[in-house]
Amino acid sequence: MNEAETKHSNTKSQDLSLNSGMIGAAVPRPDAIDKVRGEARFVDDLVFSGMLHAAVIWSEFPHAKIRNIDLTAIMDDPRVVCTLTSEEVPGDNIVHVIYDDQPALAAGIVRYIGEPIALVAAEDRASARAAATRALIDYEEIPAVFDPEEALRPDAPLVAVPAAVEKGPNLFNSMRIRKGDIEQGFAAADVVVEGEYRFGYQEHAYLETQGAIAVPEEHGAMAIYGTMQCPFYVRSAVAQVLGLPLSKVRVVQTATGGAFGGKEDVPSLVSALAALLAWKTRRPVKLVYDREEDILTTSKRHPAVIRYRSGAKRDGRLTAIEVDFIYNAGAYQTLSSAVLWRALMSAAGPYRIPHVKVDGRMAATNTVPNGAFRGFGSPQMNFAHESQMDLLSDRLQIDRLEIRLRNALQIGDETATCQRLEESVGLTETLEQAGQTVDWENRLRKIEAFNADSHSRRRGLGISTVTYGVGLGGKAPFLDKAGAYMKLEADGSITIAVGTVEMGQGLTTALTQIAAEALSLSPERIHLAPVDSSRVPDSGPTVASRGTLMSGLAIIAAAEKLQERVSSAARDLDIPKEEIPSRLPEIARVFFMRNIDPAVEGWASGEPVDWDPESGLGNVYFVYSYATHIAQVEVDLVTGEVNVEEFVAVHDSGKIVNRRLAAGQVEGGIAQGLGYALMEEIPRQGGRLLTTGLTTYRIPTICDIPLRSEVSFVEAICSKGPFGAKGLGEVPLMAAHVAVSRAVVHALGRPITTYPFSPERVKKAVTMQKNSE
Amino acid sequence: MNEAETKHSNTKSQDLSLNSGMIGAAVPRPDAIDKVRGEARFVDDLVFSGMLHAAVIWSEFPHAKIRNIDLTAIMDDPRVVCTLTSEEVPGDNIVHVIYDDQPALAAGIVRYIGEPIALVAAEDRASARAAATRALIDYEEIPAVFDPEEALRPDAPLVAVPAAVEKGPNLFNSMRIRKGDIEQGFAAADVVVEGEYRFGYQEHAYLETQGAIAVPEEHGAMAIYGTMQCPFYVRSAVAQVLGLPLSKVRVVQTATGGAFGGKEDVPSLVSALAALLAWKTRRPVKLVYDREEDILTTSKRHPAVIRYRSGAKRDGRLTAIEVDFIYNAGAYQTLSSAVLWRALMSAAGPYRIPHVKVDGRMAATNTVPNGAFRGFGSPQMNFAHESQMDLLSDRLQIDRLEIRLRNALQIGDETATCQRLEESVGLTETLEQAGQTVDWENRLRKIEAFNADSHSRRRGLGISTVTYGVGLGGKAPFLDKAGAYMKLEADGSITIAVGTVEMGQGLTTALTQIAAEALSLSPERIHLAPVDSSRVPDSGPTVASRGTLMSGLAIIAAAEKLQERVSSAARDLDIPKEEIPSRLPEIARVFFMRNIDPAVEGWASGEPVDWDPESGLGNVYFVYSYATHIAQVEVDLVTGEVNVEEFVAVHDSGKIVNRRLAAGQVEGGIAQGLGYALMEEIPRQGGRLLTTGLTTYRIPTICDIPLRSEVSFVEAICSKGPFGAKGLGEVPLMAAHVAVSRAVVHALGRPITTYPFSPERVKKAVTMQKNSE
Repeated sequence: MNEAETKHSNTKSQDLSLNSGMIGAAVPRPDAIDKVRGEARFVDDLVFSGMLHAAVIWSEFPHAKIRNIDLTAIMDDPRVVCTLTSEEVPGDNIVHVIYDDQPALAAGIVRYIGEPIALVAAEDRASARAAATRALIDYEEIPAVFDPEEALRPDAPLVAVPAAVEKGPNLFNSMRIRKGDIEQGFAAADVVVEGEYRFGYQEHAYLETQGAIAVPEEHGAMAIYGTMQCPFYVRSAVAQVLGLPLSKVRVVQTATGGAFGGKEDVPSLVSALAALLAWKTRRPVKLVYDREEDILTTSKRHPAVIRYRSGAKRDGRLTAIEVDFIYNAGAYQTLSSAVLWRALMSAAGPYRIPHVKVDGRMAATNTVPNGAFRGFGSPQMNFAHESQMDLLSDRLQIDRLEIRLRNALQIGDETATCQRLEESVGLTETLEQAGQTVDWENRLRKIEAFNADSHSRRRGLGISTVTYGVGLGGKAPFLDKAGAYMKLEADGSITIAVGTVEMGQGLTTALTQIAAEALSLSPERIHLAPVDSSRVPDSGPTVASRGTLMSGLAIIAAAEKLQERVSSAARDLDIPKEEIPSRLPEIARVFFMRNIDPAVEGWASGEPVDWDPESGLGNVYFVYSYATHIAQVEVDLVTGEVNVEEFVAVHDSGKIVNRRLAAGQVEGGIAQGLGYALMEEIPRQGGRLLTTGLTTYRIPTICDIPLRSEVSFVEAICSKGPFGAKGLGEVPLMAAHVAVSRAVVHALGRPITTYPFSPERVKKAVTMQKNSE
Repeated sequence: MNEAETKHSNTKSQDLSLNSGMIGAAVPRPDAIDKVRGEARFVDDLVFSGMLHAAVIWSEFPHAKIRNIDLTAIMDDPRVVCTLTSEEVPGDNIVHVIYDDQPALAAGIVRYIGEPIALVAAEDRASARAAATRALIDYEEIPAVFDPEEALRPDAPLVAVPAAVEKGPNLFNSMRIRKGDIEQGFAAADVVVEGEYRFGYQEHAYLETQGAIAVPEEHGAMAIYGTMQCPFYVRSAVAQVLGLPLSKVRVVQTATGGAFGGKEDVPSLVSALAALLAWKTRRPVKLVYDREEDILTTSKRHPAVIRYRSGAKRDGRLTAIEVDFIYNAGAYQTLSSAVLWRALMSAAGPYRIPHVKVDGRMAATNTVPNGAFRGFGSPQMNFAHESQMDLLSDRLQIDRLEIRLRNALQIGDETATCQRLEESVGLTETLEQAGQTVDWENRLRKIEAFNADSHSRRRGLGISTVTYGVGLGGKAPFLDKAGAYMKLEADGSITIAVGTVEMGQGLTTALTQIAAEALSLSPERIHLAPVDSSRVPDSGPTVASRGTLMSGLAIIAAAEKLQERVSSAARDLDIPKEEIPSRLPEIARVFFMRNIDPAVEGWASGEPVDWDPESGLGNVYFVYSYATHIAQVEVDLVTGEVNVEEFVAVHDSGKIVNRRLAAGQVEGGIAQGLGYALMEEIPRQGGRLLTTGLTTYRIPTICDIPLRSEVSFVEAICSKGPFGAKGLGEVPLMAAHVAVSRAVVHALGRPITTYPFSPERVKKAVTMQKNSE
């Protein structure tokens, strides 16, 4: 791929007073060498003395009462140390995420295939796994329901525990938006288009599977080492299951081999299970899922059905949308209510729409609980709203780029939740820049010419435009905070601790750069300590594209406090302000010799946001990121295979902290989006998932990645972000898959509305098209 | 032993406004269960994946040039991974303690038997150790000197590197005190007594030998896990030897099985050696000394010779002392200059003396470098000044208790360094209380009666009185500081991090109590995070009886900041002040929900102290602790064996934080003092130590411990300490050994002036006495 090209936005900017040119620079990743050399220590690389290995006995039925658990045969092997069932849990048998509905170990009933029932600890992993197969569980099957729409019918078997169900049988949650007058909105429309869009699972397919090691520590404490996004979620879950105060649980994030949301909620369960065995045996216990366990038992992107009506004026201006959607939560709530909310917030897309009615429901079924996945409920909605735009474009004969430009949110506009956008809206620039980069109109003509000449292959150009509210937003503002601890060492180097994690996305690098900028220091002198929940206050989860933003703000807050003390010492030493950075070692030595406190702690709290559940309206996010992607595909009409030939991605994530890493994050999102759009699929038969490994669950390889891609940035500065930055992480995936799938639709000239656009589904569409011709 | 009895002092007190009765309570040690169950993880219990084991190739000669190092045979074993010599050291080949004189690995010359020359890393410890024996070192012996007095002769072979020698050939340092006019002082004396006192080594004999594991971490950092007192010393040493910024070295103290000063300086060397191999191999490397290596190559209490003249009036009041002493530093400086200073500060004992002349010298010899040991240069001096008091008592026929009372420092008095004592001087009370406890005069009469009736056994009663300046004092005030990090968790529990270490002395318990008191919380809700140099600023070393004092003050500072925020939140919630402690979980939840910063950092900086090297005068410590010990012994005149029958110890360490632990620390000091006085000895033949294990180096067992002992406290409140506390750790050893040895002298009626008072030495004294009779 090309080195990313950063183009500066013409949108509202501000004097950032950047000291050192550090922000934006392609500073190398400090973790790159470790990872390239294979020296980064992932959880399964860690050993502790006396460490045991755990295996889980999983439910084999999607819905059943457990009549008896007979684990006697497990103990046949002398290398097995113990078993553990729900009855022995010393605290609450609950893995808290948002609701208290999911047990750590099933107690009397199982609700999905792959629910943990009991645990085994043994001296080695093979013995533990072999022993687990000797468990005799006496199940009594009870009626189950797997399809979310069926689950919401009044006669459906009841899946969920009452505590988790807010709104009705199997209806975990429902939420809505009511803006304007929907009747009036459609009445004002010249055209109305409708669509129904369906999505299956997407598996995170992180390289490193779930895993945790629980290590009993001194003073009755428990430490957890694991691969995760949210050390503070894990800490709460482990404390609750063990009945310990939070201060007695310490969570250390180990090098994390990919997460994508899949390590937001699940590590709480994995860690709780390991912790239970460690508590019982008083020895360290490692639990690492194999790939099959990981695919079958952990959360995925929610399958969904979305019904969408859009009305527009003849000139393309949207007048109204009405959206109704159901997502399949699986058997427990985990993060589904938050996913539902984010889906709701994404329903309107990045468009100015006066009348909006959205209704979302999260249904409980006897399937694996779904959770966070890059985009967090948005990607399904992004395909829906962009499909609708393309339908309107078709119907109104307005160019697809043009119709988006006409509706694109701008400063001063109101979003679907009646939030007035006051700054940092680079959406139009992303559309314009993406269009220019591909030479949109000429490109369309060339494609038309190619298609006219080709029998077996068709090219298409897809465009997608998305917006993403950065951070956790108005439904959970209490999660949007972050702490940073910073100290000036006696040699002028800097130690920093934060509570958000590096999971491959480059956070460590970005935060090092922010600290370097804030302190006018070389990044080599700055070191981020390992992430450990005992080092910093609860800094919320590393999700919602908030890592750089929130921990960056906390670091800046800390740096300001430290700079104050440094300046004061410099004044005492008659060191001029401009010489402070270069003479920091000397000043640091004075701190040391004169016993000046060299430590500070910085704190960042999210900007005020709100949301009214009744109307669904509010200032729901304090800032939004934007992107436009354009993909060119070539479809083989014979095989149904799609080749993504070229990709253009233009992002507004405010000021870009590290150009190269940001481009890398976009490129990763393109790959992951391409997979979601074209190939990633887990067939389900009743409550059983039929894909159990990465040989059958296909993800893109280097051969699938577009040969030509160009990533660029417009930088609509966010005055509330660190040096003007907003968030980036999730946006590329959201935009990318839609650009690809819409390009296929463009190529075929015929809609496909069900994901993924697999060769089979594409061939079927081709066949149907031929038949209709 | 009896449960310790705490008697409150009548001395100056203050309103401590103690909230919860936590201070003084016998709160159980949070680390007790782990240690009793064998679950505490000491450094040799830790494993890391891919971990190698190190062995050291030690110098076999006390002074030699290294002509060649041939390590080829080492690599014969495929389990050996690499060797390493001084040439490969990436940073400075220096283990910095105070001076830059000691190499990590000998470069061209060795200066003592047991100096590290080269390193081996292998897959297992046995292979590493076996390989090390295959090293072929070609030495060229050069003249050496072992005795400190010989070393200071002008013609002695030169031991030390020039950088380390301040004052002359083989004279590492000399220091002095000049108070008043010594001629006038002796002229005013009615009697003058003289003594010469000699001391050999004392080995720390901690249960856990020296050990460290160096673990390469992400981002080019190095972590050290080890048994130690001073994480920040280790960090500096490792950073220097690897050429890394301080922020790239993280030092984690592991459960530490005893230290007694022996883990103040040595872990810097051990960790540097492990770190060098870890740097070279990019793998974790464990280096754990076996007992023989530990005894032969690590620091001990300095052998010493002290010449002491004391003058007094007929009424017993001291008029002058003149002290001249030489301590044997060994081949490198390590902490010797600090030990010299502390010895100087202790020379006058706890007495009011108008004219003082003290000269101390620290000599370099070709022996193992000596360093810190509980008392830090004082214990030798304590025996000297107390022997002198007994000599005066004899000469003046003034009772030993009485003569001490007449000279004991009191508030308003000036010390030997002309420091006016302004508060917290409980010395007289310790003398009185100790005397009352043994019923001094009656006891003496009973002993006399016993001795009159006994042929083969003699009883004696020894008394000793000592003072100890708490903290690091006027020679290194920049080391007296400490940081504490504290956060309020969402459930109202508290996490604290400090930089001083638990090494068995009970610091964790004491600090938990201080935090509990400061926050009016139950100690169960408070958890101290593992000590990790990256968590807190350089908090100085855990030495000089300063742990509770300095980290306690830092915790109180942090607690005050936190209380301020808590009170403010409570006001918002209309929670009355008195309900805050019980409703802290509720308030903590509000912190969490409203994004209030729950973290604070506290900082404590030592009170101003000073010292003038020219005169040796100054306000050298901001406060002093005091103790009086009385021991009754029975000497077997046939075997020379001494049985310590009874022990009374009365301490003024200000407010006692934990009565039971303080008593335990005193009891441990009694045992260790008893060993120093009676049995602990390492014979030296030239540069070679002849005792290599704990079978020949005898330390007291449970059979040697006095059957009757009573520990009590007078609490002369220190307004500058945490809740009135001062320091305790070193004082018991200082007082105890003198009470024992002086009791032997009392029993025999004849002085012994050379340590230890081994059966052989006692028998010799008995024989000489008989011969002289």
